Amino acid sequence: MHPLAERIHHQDIRALAKAITLVESETEEKLTLMSDIFSFSRQAHHIGITGSPGAGKSSLINRLLTYLREQGLTVAVIAVDPTSPFSGGALLGDRTRMQQHFTDPGIFIRSMATRGNLGGLARASKDAIRVCDAFGFDVVLVETVGVGQSELDIMKVVDSTGLVLTPNSGDVLQIFKAGIMEIADLFIINKADYPGVARLKTTLQEYMMIADPKGWQPPIVETVSTENKGMAALWEQFKEHQGFLYGTDQGANRRKQQLKLEVYDLIREEIWRDVERAIEHDAAKQQLLNDSQADPYELARRWFKDWKERGPRQ
Amino acid sequence: MHPLAERIHHQDIRALAKAITLVESETEEKLTLMSDIFSFSRQAHHIGITGSPGAGKSSLINRLLTYLREQGLTVAVIAVDPTSPFSGGALLGDRTRMQQHFTDPGIFIRSMATRGNLGGLARASKDAIRVCDAFGFDVVLVETVGVGQSELDIMKVVDSTGLVLTPNSGDVLQIFKAGIMEIADLFIINKADYPGVARLKTTLQEYMMIADPKGWQPPIVETVSTENKGMAALWEQFKEHQGFLYGTDQGANRRKQQLKLEVYDLIREEIWRDVERAIEHDAAKQQLLNDSQADPYELARRWFKDWKERGPRQ
Repeated sequence: MHPLAERIHHQDIRALAKAITLVESETEEKLTLMSDIFSFSRQAHHIGITGSPGAGKSSLINRLLTYLREQGLTVAVIAVDPTSPFSGGALLGDRTRMQQHFTDPGIFIRSMATRGNLGGLARASKDAIRVCDAFGFDVVLVETVGVGQSELDIMKVVDSTGLVLTPNSGDVLQIFKAGIMEIADLFIINKADYPGVARLKTTLQEYMMIADPKGWQPPIVETVSTENKGMAALWEQFKEHQGFLYGTDQGANRRKQQLKLEVYDLIREEIWRDVERAIEHDAAKQQLLNDSQADPYELARRWFKDWKERGPRQ
Repeated sequence: MHPLAERIHHQDIRALAKAITLVESETEEKLTLMSDIFSFSRQAHHIGITGSPGAGKSSLINRLLTYLREQGLTVAVIAVDPTSPFSGGALLGDRTRMQQHFTDPGIFIRSMATRGNLGGLARASKDAIRVCDAFGFDVVLVETVGVGQSELDIMKVVDSTGLVLTPNSGDVLQIFKAGIMEIADLFIINKADYPGVARLKTTLQEYMMIADPKGWQPPIVETVSTENKGMAALWEQFKEHQGFLYGTDQGANRRKQQLKLEVYDLIREEIWRDVERAIEHDAAKQQLLNDSQADPYELARRWFKDWKERGPRQ
């Protein structure tokens, strides 16, 4: 067993931080560590909170954290920021609101930002969720800055996704157009003390009439995070959805689909690491890459053919 | 030869649009089409314009287009929008400023947005640049919404990247911290009629003193796109950089590095398509994926081992 896995099993918090750094690094060690860790996976509830910037996700999570701690639950928060530094400042700023939680041993907070490539970020975030699960947290909360493609990728691996909307923001129509509604297991109307709540609810209900529920009709929860309102109702709906996932055939299907995506992701990463290494060590191929006039499409086509005919050990 | 390649060779504008749709679709046909097209690549100058939202990139490009047309040059514009629908509205809005150019046959404008995955967008954008090049445009301008990771990926394949900054925006320090300065071949201070230009220039010069120039010191160009100022100087600096790329050893090295990245990208895409198909058609593997309790890390590790031992034709 990987030494970090052993230490995580014994709830060594420094091992947790180290393991997340390891999964971020995309080294070969990762699969071993992750598989060891998977064996003592403790079935935390994995929750995603997504929505447009400005919807108040961070305040909401801050309040939800307090509520969950009051219920005696331990929580890991993975804050994912795939955006450019231009819009990413908000996330770090919001972190200060969470300061009260930093000294609480029942809470672990970790930011994940883009390193190398976006696919790598989504992958590392998924692994980080698993590591927190294995450590024994009751809840793993994943927060994203916005709702771009890599955030959607990450949301595909959590159990329950809450989509945060605000009244009169115009967000809902854009979300609808972009097909983002489909990832929501819960609609959270935050800032529900603002005017326009009734209208937003009508829009959401109209959407649900035409949507394919696949066995689960997303409930609408109203929250006012500035006034700490709606947290109990929000949590109850998340538990309700967990019951659906683990208690119904449709829920099981969804979990199977997630597993498949995850295996595909992992194997793609492994194979590519291997192929890249082979090309790096192939002097003839490196020679061809030295001609800046070469046709990249032709080289890719030819090398792919080589690979198909002679196999990965060529 | 692919029929679309033939038609692009004869400058059929509908074939151009169709070919870009084809490269977006990630079908197997793509490599053939692209390789055919590569053979009559016409060496357009590929220019990237990036910078934070609000820096005035679209107005700047609009003015630059007018300037380039006055010089008798034909221009293709690829507008890349990898952001969520929440921040992406701006791009479409800005397009209306370009309306005057829509009826000009010497200008082709195409938007590329996220479909499927961000890696796919960067890949498709690169291919679209090549298709426009093959068609015979003198200049291919690539505009991005912000400066996130996938925009940076795209900028790695253009010849010359202009980073648009504005005085007193605070952008420059964030750009510096994020390592984005390194992709700039030109610093464009837009809105140069605002106060703070001298200070921004000092900051940029300080940066350049500690940066590794690799044979090219990025010039600083001042523009005021609202007043149509600085376009001739901007264009002159872009031509200067093109001269560096095609006239020096460091420039040749950079082009080699780009080729390598591109081949790697293409072959990764091909191999993955192949592996995915193999797994989809493997009944035993699909059976294992049917158990939602399975360990994804263990499956990935085992299948990767299979693949290594038995090769891609297993």
